[in-house]
Amino acid sequence: MTQLHGQQLVSKLDADGTLTVELAGFDVPAPTGTQVVIRVEAAPINPSDLGLLFGPADIEGATFTPGKIVARMPEPAVRAMQARHGMAMPVGNEGAGTVVAAGEAPEAQALMGKRVTCFPGGMYATHAVADARMCMELGDEISAEQGASAFVNPLTALSFTETMRYHGHKALVHTAAASNLGQMLVKICQADGIPLVNIVRSEAQVAILKGIGAEHVVDSSKDSFLADLAIAIDATKATMAFDAIGGGKLVSQILTVMEQVSNSGAAYSRYGSNAPKHAFVYGALDLSPTVLTRNFGFVWDVSGWLLTPWLGKLGAEIAAKMRSRVLAELTTTFASSYKAHVTLEQALTREAATDYNARRTGEKYLITPNG
Amino acid sequence: MTQLHGQQLVSKLDADGTLTVELAGFDVPAPTGTQVVIRVEAAPINPSDLGLLFGPADIEGATFTPGKIVARMPEPAVRAMQARHGMAMPVGNEGAGTVVAAGEAPEAQALMGKRVTCFPGGMYATHAVADARMCMELGDEISAEQGASAFVNPLTALSFTETMRYHGHKALVHTAAASNLGQMLVKICQADGIPLVNIVRSEAQVAILKGIGAEHVVDSSKDSFLADLAIAIDATKATMAFDAIGGGKLVSQILTVMEQVSNSGAAYSRYGSNAPKHAFVYGALDLSPTVLTRNFGFVWDVSGWLLTPWLGKLGAEIAAKMRSRVLAELTTTFASSYKAHVTLEQALTREAATDYNARRTGEKYLITPNG
Repeated sequence: MTQLHGQQLVSKLDADGTLTVELAGFDVPAPTGTQVVIRVEAAPINPSDLGLLFGPADIEGATFTPGKIVARMPEPAVRAMQARHGMAMPVGNEGAGTVVAAGEAPEAQALMGKRVTCFPGGMYATHAVADARMCMELGDEISAEQGASAFVNPLTALSFTETMRYHGHKALVHTAAASNLGQMLVKICQADGIPLVNIVRSEAQVAILKGIGAEHVVDSSKDSFLADLAIAIDATKATMAFDAIGGGKLVSQILTVMEQVSNSGAAYSRYGSNAPKHAFVYGALDLSPTVLTRNFGFVWDVSGWLLTPWLGKLGAEIAAKMRSRVLAELTTTFASSYKAHVTLEQALTREAATDYNARRTGEKYLITPNG
Repeated sequence: MTQLHGQQLVSKLDADGTLTVELAGFDVPAPTGTQVVIRVEAAPINPSDLGLLFGPADIEGATFTPGKIVARMPEPAVRAMQARHGMAMPVGNEGAGTVVAAGEAPEAQALMGKRVTCFPGGMYATHAVADARMCMELGDEISAEQGASAFVNPLTALSFTETMRYHGHKALVHTAAASNLGQMLVKICQADGIPLVNIVRSEAQVAILKGIGAEHVVDSSKDSFLADLAIAIDATKATMAFDAIGGGKLVSQILTVMEQVSNSGAAYSRYGSNAPKHAFVYGALDLSPTVLTRNFGFVWDVSGWLLTPWLGKLGAEIAAKMRSRVLAELTTTFASSYKAHVTLEQALTREAATDYNARRTGEKYLITPNG
């Protein structure tokens, strides 16, 4: 085949703290073996992408020129990210598009001309290379937009319930619960009969979740938050939480309420209850430290949670089952919605970048590189 | 037998925030079944006892009269400890003494007149009741003082290494490492070939641990602390920590250094390394919140650690093995040292109470109720 030339969005951090995010031309590699080249039609901007794209850099104060953003990265982050200094890193975890070239392997050849969704990285580009065995074919009735977010959020939401089973818990608490991911979790828990406490930050978000049938929705912006949370945790007996926020006291508050509920009516023990309480931090919407007051006894766990190692821990059989379910329910349980569609160039404008970098719940952007 | 009258130290918190710690007379119950009555000769004041005895009450500002302390408890603690309001709670987890009465069961009768060590609670008293099956007989060559601390610290130190094996880790970090417990852990790890990083807070504590042969001792009061810690963690490849302090940033710093060491030389990943890192908080020498900066990726755990549930988790076989080892090495590996001996009355003086309540490493008190 002839050499394809494409454009891709890259993020480069220099040792002096300069972050450059720009569109760069690149030669699309000729696929070999099970590789396929995908002409990218839709790729979502997830919070996990923003970590690599901008991190904690000062985007409000950045310089914007067509196809290029130059921003300052704060010094502690510059040091922490030493391993990426000087490297132009492609961005975009997942997306959907059409296979336009394929390696010689039958799995790759079988996808020629097909619309697929995948999770290879580097999807903020006109073209991306993926392994055919990791692609899911979308079929004619599902658009690239509908199929663009088939991995990160759906597999994360499904893995939350599998992580719960893995650790022997029976009900969940979820924060930032009005997100696309949160709405998927509401639908999964409804279908699977898992009691779920949704914590959101506004009346409008309460309405969104009530609108899709969520039973327990608690608004952390209200004065009655802790009392409301106690009622919901008592009703569900939830002992495991997934937190997208990370910073501040919310995780600590959830554990405190779980401890109060499990201890209620019990004799005093200076060490607290022996009831397990486990909170996973899977996001960092708030980059400030997690503050644990530890007024919840000595039987508790707070852990980081990341999709890839957890997929490994859950095993191939559960992973395959989850992928089948995502494909079957892509336009129902796992439907995503977007605030705006932008081209690669538009994604690098001040208006777009400051808006999607605010990471507001329910305001996700979709990049349409060939749109 | 005739009714025995004894004296015991009790701690009572009233709903109005008044904490009363006093010596109270009590009728020693007649033992039945496997119960034995122990004339208490020595009982240590461990940090875990101070939680029930005083908690966060203002002992500096308390009123002291002979045999009685009256102090104010801060309001949040009064609320958190609602379940103990108005109850006069006996204090003193563990201790040693002589069996002076026994229930009809052969296990109990076999201990009559014997010196034993046990862990029944209520040991700050002239007499305490214990289950014979939970007592360890000390034999003639071991004094009550030598046998008084045979449970809390020895089983905790041994359980740290078993917890490490349970989770598949190979080396440990320990904080407040110059404590009696810390010195036991040094000796256990030496005997068992477990690499151990000891974190202490002064030059004097470095000297104590070096004096008993500890290899890796890091002083957190030095400017070079984080660099020194990185060298020690790199040398030991420690990926699990036990922290007695709880409050502040130390746990976060340990996880950060573990992440840097495990990531060193690796390609940049925005999500951090996949190397497990686990910190257990088993004490609360600093009651302020635990502050986690989360600059150590997404594969990490911070957990509470408490002896009793962990003994259950490790199982009866390991627990029995640990008890045998403690008894065999009570005057070597598991020897404790005390700053002062006090009677029950002396323990309630301003001079003693403010001194032992400062919880300074290596300054443990021993109560000798019949001494």
